[in-house]
This record gives sequence, structure tokens and C-alpha cells, in this order.
Amino acid sequence: MHILIIGGGFAGLYTARGLKGVDAQITVLDRHNYHLFQPLLYQVATAGLNPSDIAAPIRSILRGQKNVSVVLGEAVSIDPNARLVQLADGHSLSYDQLVLATGATHSYFAHPEWERFAPGLKSIDDALEIRRRVLLAFEAAERETDPELQKAWLTFVVIGAGPTGVELAGALSEIARQTMVKDFRRIQPQQARVILLEGKDRVLPVYPPDLSENARVQLENLGVEVITGAVVTDLDDRQVRFGDQTLATRTILWGAGVQASPLATSLDVPLDRAGRVLVEPDLTIPGHKNIFVLGDLAAAEQHDGSFVPGVAPAAIQQGQHTALNLERAVAGQPLRAFRYKDKGSLATIGRAAAVADFGKLHFGGFFAWMAWLLIHIFFLIGFRNRFLVITQWAWAYLTYQRGARLITGLDRKP
Amino acid sequence: MHILIIGGGFAGLYTARGLKGVDAQITVLDRHNYHLFQPLLYQVATAGLNPSDIAAPIRSILRGQKNVSVVLGEAVSIDPNARLVQLADGHSLSYDQLVLATGATHSYFAHPEWERFAPGLKSIDDALEIRRRVLLAFEAAERETDPELQKAWLTFVVIGAGPTGVELAGALSEIARQTMVKDFRRIQPQQARVILLEGKDRVLPVYPPDLSENARVQLENLGVEVITGAVVTDLDDRQVRFGDQTLATRTILWGAGVQASPLATSLDVPLDRAGRVLVEPDLTIPGHKNIFVLGDLAAAEQHDGSFVPGVAPAAIQQGQHTALNLERAVAGQPLRAFRYKDKGSLATIGRAAAVADFGKLHFGGFFAWMAWLLIHIFFLIGFRNRFLVITQWAWAYLTYQRGARLITGLDRKP
Repeated sequence: MHILIIGGGFAGLYTARGLKGVDAQITVLDRHNYHLFQPLLYQVATAGLNPSDIAAPIRSILRGQKNVSVVLGEAVSIDPNARLVQLADGHSLSYDQLVLATGATHSYFAHPEWERFAPGLKSIDDALEIRRRVLLAFEAAERETDPELQKAWLTFVVIGAGPTGVELAGALSEIARQTMVKDFRRIQPQQARVILLEGKDRVLPVYPPDLSENARVQLENLGVEVITGAVVTDLDDRQVRFGDQTLATRTILWGAGVQASPLATSLDVPLDRAGRVLVEPDLTIPGHKNIFVLGDLAAAEQHDGSFVPGVAPAAIQQGQHTALNLERAVAGQPLRAFRYKDKGSLATIGRAAAVADFGKLHFGGFFAWMAWLLIHIFFLIGFRNRFLVITQWAWAYLTYQRGARLITGLDRKP
Repeated sequence: MHILIIGGGFAGLYTARGLKGVDAQITVLDRHNYHLFQPLLYQVATAGLNPSDIAAPIRSILRGQKNVSVVLGEAVSIDPNARLVQLADGHSLSYDQLVLATGATHSYFAHPEWERFAPGLKSIDDALEIRRRVLLAFEAAERETDPELQKAWLTFVVIGAGPTGVELAGALSEIARQTMVKDFRRIQPQQARVILLEGKDRVLPVYPPDLSENARVQLENLGVEVITGAVVTDLDDRQVRFGDQTLATRTILWGAGVQASPLATSLDVPLDRAGRVLVEPDLTIPGHKNIFVLGDLAAAEQHDGSFVPGVAPAAIQQGQHTALNLERAVAGQPLRAFRYKDKGSLATIGRAAAVADFGKLHFGGFFAWMAWLLIHIFFLIGFRNRFLVITQWAWAYLTYQRGARLITGLDRKP
């Protein structure tokens, strides 16, 4: 029995871990050699953490599990009848049971040309690119003599006020108002504007309205200008347009829209508008009980008609559940339906600022932030990483400094 | 009085620091926004440390020094008569006193086409590229089914047994023999070959012969194959040739040859074969008492006819000395000659392995390594960095793990 898991994110990794000791040969395939703790990726983009603080080689996470092999490679298509997965390098892998957990990327809706001007945040390379742009903008402002252009370099626009957009806006404001203050001679970094644009009528639209309001107040206290009801109609390397307004800016970051990984399109199963696979209650696809789709790639309907949200805890639960189902499949037993247990959600905004939604209990501010911190450190994989992250956060909290303010990639040979 | 310092390495940074409180306007210009602690760069290339552990923004190092401005930019030529420095972005900077400390890069002798196949180690981007190639080679070997090709993927060749080549070879052997051992299923990383090629008749040729022999024994104990008298005649992405031998390999690293930064060529002063400026005893150039050349860019003859070595302590001493000379110039006093104080040298080889040359006292092994460690941590700039580096080294020493084993750059958009 060969179980092939595509994707080493939360869903794929927790599936593999849950299969420890099961009598099957397991292969984990990923485009990268590392598992990325995505909830902290914005900290890399804003120079608070290093890539290796929030990522660890998949091989070394799974090294103790003798039934697992790890392969670096990119799947491009699936043939469910031949039970074969085609890789980008021309090789193919066969399977008996397949777990698809390749996640999602950003959607620029009908404007793929915007990506170049407004990078999103999904991978380490994205984070380093955003870090590079933000730090270079301050450098360019310091050199610039024309006051209008200087203002444009010091204007940072974040599009989309979901959790990632809110985190980025909060962290950018902190950088400008605290970290950079004494570093420059000609500009005053604290005069930088950080503008958060949201098309809907409130920030964090998936949270209850009272927490959206709470988050908006916390963002404004950190110095972020929040503009809701702002649907972006055009952008380029000089400006962003929404409604009848035009903002001159040199740095635009994208936190809106989700598009599932394109791998599922080769399956010939129904997808939703975002390209996610409409899965059965047991997370398999219609007609193929040996293909499971998990995490951000799956659209799993719940009893109340809503869908399982695209968050890390849901991916982890789906991974754990699928490991149990695969064990049942190995033993010839029927599969069980998945049920998402919502344990509440937390969104961080900045230094000592966050919101918490635990069912009836809603709160914001320092205690929400502490809860967010503890939970994220607890789930971070690997003791070394946890220890280093705590150390760096404590350092940043006490000194207002961010240690990873390096502009890299300038010497890259083409 | 405007003092322009080009280059934020050891020489430039120590010049700027030495000018604290001096009544002059000082500008530090660098292509990067960070000062790089180059002696530890091989640790980034071999996944032991993160870039930000050994680099810090020049702005933040000098933030407390009110007479200093920092500018990100690349100097392309100098007009000593007009006292102007031309930048790559079209701007220019004028100066009264100029300090040139732009360092050196690798020399591929008459073979610039080799650079693509055998990257050298001078910048953070170089280090990340080397890390990427080394980690990808193990991944490719694990996937490869042809035993000959698998062997080629597991053969690592380092060309040049100076300090950088020795560090890289020792660290690579450690990765293969200790860090990676349990991570793979099909290959045995400890069967990887690490081959160190040196054209001269011994490793570390600038050290006394007894220490070269000591270093060779330590390298071989770490599993490195040392081949001396091996002048490379050809190489590409499949093999390296020396004498009548051909080695099949997919990973070649370059640790040979030094070429001074090309900026000095616009000065119209005598250069040595490596492109270094033949400076006067006070480190100025002939005919221009207001242009100082320091660090790896300078060829400074000593009383015994030898040249000041291209090592960090020499660059630091030259920086400190030049700050004093600039202070004298501001006060209208004559300049003083520079004299290098050789406090001894240390070269690290690997885990608990190094050699130390303190004049009459030569020793190798654990105590040399401890001395190397303490001195490097002491000179590392910034408390946070020191603390993080000690933590990561202690962790790596106790567990044989290296935390930064990430293959990044795969998603780069062209």
C-alpha cells in the first residue's frame, strides 16, 4: 500500500504524522524542502523573524518516521484512473491512496498584471521580496529631494483587510513609528503613511462586527489609516485607484483574494469559484474513494451549509482525520465523515494588539495578543524554533528593534 | 568638511566609528544596506546561521553618531580633480576627504565563464546560492536511480584551500556525516565525498608549514579528501579537471583567487596584479593626500617588504588609523604612517577543529577552535547577534543539527 501525500503544509504534514506506525509506504511530495509555519510569515516580510525561524526541512521533521520518504518535486497533473501523478521534471509517481493538500495562492481576480506591482504573501520568497521593497522604499525616500516623490515613497498601501492584510499594516506602522525612527537623517520615518484598503464595509470581515470595530480602533491607535468600502479599480508602480480617489505610492502589498492551487483542475471534479474542490463529507472526491483533498484546496461543506474556513486549525484537523481514515482504509474499514471543531480564532494586529473570538467570548488588546502569541509558539514545530522565536520577540518587544532588516537579492545573477 | 566613506565593511565602518564627535559631515555609501561580518559567511552558506545573525543595517549600527549619514548606492567612478564620485543611479557625491574601502571579490583568473559553475563566497546572496546548491544536490541524489549519477550528486569539490575553502570543506563534511544522516531513505549522506583541491603544495599556504600539516590532518579526520598540487585546468556543470584527472561532480565551490573591486581603476594610480591600489605609508594614494584606500582594496607595503594581509583585523586597524589621520587632517596636522600589528591568526576547520598561529606559539584542535569562537563572537557587532549566534552554535554543537537548511529562491519571478 503506497500513500502519496502532495503538499507539506499543515494538512499534509499532520496526515503524515498521524500515519506513524501504520503498515504502509508513505511518500510526502512538496515543491519546497521545508514546511512553512504560514501564520508567522508576515513577521519575515516585516523583518521581525528569519525564514528559518518559521520553517524547517520536511525531511528533518519526519526523520524519525521510518515509513515516510520525502521527495522534492512539483506535481503538475493527476490521472485518477491510472493512479499516477505527473511531476514537472518528467518523472511520475504511482499511488494507492492519494492526499492532495497543495493549498492556495493569491487571486488578483481578473488582473494578473497587478501581481508585479502588488506582491502577495504566500511563500518565503514572497516575504523576502516584500521585505526588500519596504526597506528600499525608506532608503529611496531618504535619497529623494522632491517632496512629492518623497511622500510617495513613504506611502504604503495594503489591499485587503483580512488577517494577513491587518498583520502587514500593523507591522509596517510599527516599523515606521518605532523601529526606524533614529536611523535616518533627512526623512522622519514616523511620518510614513500606512493605508489599509478594504472593499467590504469593515476590517476582518470574517470576524463578528464588534471585533471588526475593535480591530479598526486598535489599527488606528497604531497609526494605520483604515479605508473601508474601497474597491480598487486600478494600480501600477506609481499609484492605486479606488472609487474616485488616487493615492500616489511606491509600495503596494496584496492581501486580498484566494485562488486554490491549479493541480485540482486535472481531476475533472466540481470546483467552486475560487478553484477549490467540492469534497464529500469524508474529504474524498466524488467517484474516487482513494483521493482525499484537504486544507485550502478543499471546499468542505458543514452541517449548517457553511464551509470549513481556510485556517491552520482546520487544515490540522483535516490532516489528523485523514490519517485515521487512511488507517481505516488500510484495514478495509469504511471511511468516516470529517467534522470541524471550531476552537475560536485570533487575529494579531501589532504590538500588544489583537482580537479574539471564542464563540460568546470576544475580546481585544493585550490579552488577545498574549493568547495569540502563546498559541502560535505552542504550535510552531521544533523546540529550537520556538526558543529562537521567543528570544527574538522578547528582544523586539523590549527594544522596538527588528533584527532582520537586510535588503538581499540585489546581487542576484540573472 | 565632508568626509565620504565608500564601503561599509570592516575598514569603512571602523573609520566612521573612529570619527565619532569629530567636527565634520560624514557620509557612508554602500551597495548594501548592511554591514556583513564576513568571517562567518561560510556558516550561512552551510546552513548553520541565518543572514541576519551575521549582518546588521549600517544605519542602525551608526544611528547614535549624529555626524554620519548613510546612503544606499553604488559608486562607479571617481574624479579626483573635481572631487566627485559618480553613482550608478546617475547622481554624484562631492567630497573633501575620500575613504575607499570597497573590498575585493573572487578572481577566476582567465576563466570568467567558470563563475556560473563554481560560485564563490563574498556576499549573502552568494552564501544563499551555495546553500541552495548543496541542499539541492542531496535532494537530487535521493531521487536519482543511476548509481553513477547519484555518486556525482554526492561529490562536492571545493577549489582553493585558503581559509574560506577550508571552512567550506570542513562544514560540508560535517553536514554529510552528521546533520543529514537520518534524513534520507535511499542515499547515505555520509558516503558523500568532499574533495578540497589546492594548487600549491599544502593547505592554508599563508600559514606556517607545521600548521598546514596540522590542518590537513584535522580535515582528513573530518572526512575531507585533500589533494594538493592540483591546478584546475577546466570545469563545467558535470566535472572538474586537474592534471590528468577528471572528477564527476555536480557541485563545485570556489575559494581561490582575489580580485580587488574595480572602482580603483578610475583613479589612474598604480595597481598590483590583483587590482589593488599601491598606497603610500599613510594609506593615501600618490598625488592625492585626501584619498585614502583601505582594506582588501589596498596593497600596503610593510617595512620588511611584505604586504599587509587581506584579513579583518588589518582592515579594522586601517579604519581606526585612518579615522585618526582624518581628525589630524581636519585640524591641519600632517598624516601619520600606518603600521600593522599582527596579533596572530586563527583558521577554523570544523567542529572542534582549527589552527592558531600566534607568532612562536602554534597549536591546533579544540583549543584553537575555542579561541576562534570566542574572538569571533567578541568582534561580532551587536549584542542581539552575539546572543543568537551563541545560542545557535550551542544548539548545533549539542545536536549536530543545522537550523537554516532551507532551499529558497525556487519561486523567484524572473
